[in-house]
Amino acid sequence: MTKAELFSQIQKKSSFLCVGLDADITKVPSHLHSEKDPIFTFCKEIIEQTADFAVAYKPNIAFFEALGPQGWETLQKVNELIPKEIFTIADAKRGDIGNTSKLYARAFFEKMDFDSVTVAPYMGVDSVTPFLEFENKWVILLALTSNSGSMDFQLIKDEAGKPLYQSVLEKSQTWGNSENMMYVVGATRGELIGEVRKVVPDHFFLVPGVGAQGGSLSDVAKYGMNPSCGLLVNSSRGIIYASREKDFGICARKEAEKLQIEMSELLDKYL
Amino acid sequence: MTKAELFSQIQKKSSFLCVGLDADITKVPSHLHSEKDPIFTFCKEIIEQTADFAVAYKPNIAFFEALGPQGWETLQKVNELIPKEIFTIADAKRGDIGNTSKLYARAFFEKMDFDSVTVAPYMGVDSVTPFLEFENKWVILLALTSNSGSMDFQLIKDEAGKPLYQSVLEKSQTWGNSENMMYVVGATRGELIGEVRKVVPDHFFLVPGVGAQGGSLSDVAKYGMNPSCGLLVNSSRGIIYASREKDFGICARKEAEKLQIEMSELLDKYL
Repeated sequence: MTKAELFSQIQKKSSFLCVGLDADITKVPSHLHSEKDPIFTFCKEIIEQTADFAVAYKPNIAFFEALGPQGWETLQKVNELIPKEIFTIADAKRGDIGNTSKLYARAFFEKMDFDSVTVAPYMGVDSVTPFLEFENKWVILLALTSNSGSMDFQLIKDEAGKPLYQSVLEKSQTWGNSENMMYVVGATRGELIGEVRKVVPDHFFLVPGVGAQGGSLSDVAKYGMNPSCGLLVNSSRGIIYASREKDFGICARKEAEKLQIEMSELLDKYL
Repeated sequence: MTKAELFSQIQKKSSFLCVGLDADITKVPSHLHSEKDPIFTFCKEIIEQTADFAVAYKPNIAFFEALGPQGWETLQKVNELIPKEIFTIADAKRGDIGNTSKLYARAFFEKMDFDSVTVAPYMGVDSVTPFLEFENKWVILLALTSNSGSMDFQLIKDEAGKPLYQSVLEKSQTWGNSENMMYVVGATRGELIGEVRKVVPDHFFLVPGVGAQGGSLSDVAKYGMNPSCGLLVNSSRGIIYASREKDFGICARKEAEKLQIEMSELLDKYL
């Protein structure tokens, strides 16, 4: 998917919502457990109910991998049923030496037709560039994450006072561009999103940490939005586990719609 | 596997060789392509031929993942046929927020019975500790890798002049210990291994980069060996693709034996 196509969908739906498919077998409603493939049935219902409000889906690969070979078949089926105009993110956080990264890229972009993969930067240029060789596919590089451990290394300042995540932003901009690279930028520190935006004015950010992790959507928009929106804000648990009963689909729909309405107002305000 | 069990095997075999199973379908001998599961047949032959000289096997997960769901079944079967006394490493370079890392840990330690997983440090403490909660299982944390991109971030010095990889070593030692944590330390810079050894005297290092990537085995031993050996030196391509013909197994055996003889001398010299 191109950046223009993504932005056009954002405008059409008045939304920059990404729904995170953290499909945990221990958390899906119990009535699904008798299904042949409970995770597939769960994701199908979530996608059908939320597709009007979401511009992206982000399956969390670990949850599928944890199911063994069967989980990969489920992942493939889930990815196939996501409407083609919606952006898909394989949240895999891969990153290895060049020839290995190339294989990961093939697995997610060719074997399965994901639009993007999340990638970890620690191993540097040759761990990232193999993902950039696929047309209309995207790397979403970890820059500033929203988890507690993000402070351990990402904020370490170098001799010139520049935090590590900024070095990641600066260096990686020479590897790709705003048409094939996005950044993970956590929502838990609104003003930091503004710092990141200064360094990378044109790139999309994938923003986790709104909702369950405490980030504020209006802060994210205030500090992070750019003329092409430039934001995909993810919500996982707040939507997909809004109810653990038979009405989980309807409840997910309501939560997604709530966020979409809020996003629509923010798009009107800042765009 | 415990550290004592690993060391005992090193002594028994006079070897600290890890064979990397980078089982690439485009590189395995062509006569295997007619097999039902060429990668399995390839790995089986490699394991049978090299098990006398290897103390560890390291399947590179990307190569199996690239084959789709079938690849995960192959990986599981390959892991099961590795003799129980040999240490197994899922070279997956995972690393995600806590609840996701927990799932990756379950996938590799419970679903498949690997002894260890390679983990990327960028996301910090909660991305690593879930892997440490499994008894007799190991995290192998990326510290200083051997690829060209390793210089992009790992060598960035902080305000006190300390390179990032050293911060990773220091901080992570408060998360685990030398009984459940190892470090990836590339072989392409012998003297740097000595620097790492000063910071972590007791931990095992998984050392890639010997052979194809140009690292010297004797330098690795000189700078890196400790009283429990403390080294697993990996060779992948140099062994498994020693021949691309029907004699690939025998040739792999010869290459593994060559390295084992060299390692035996180094163990005699330094231990």
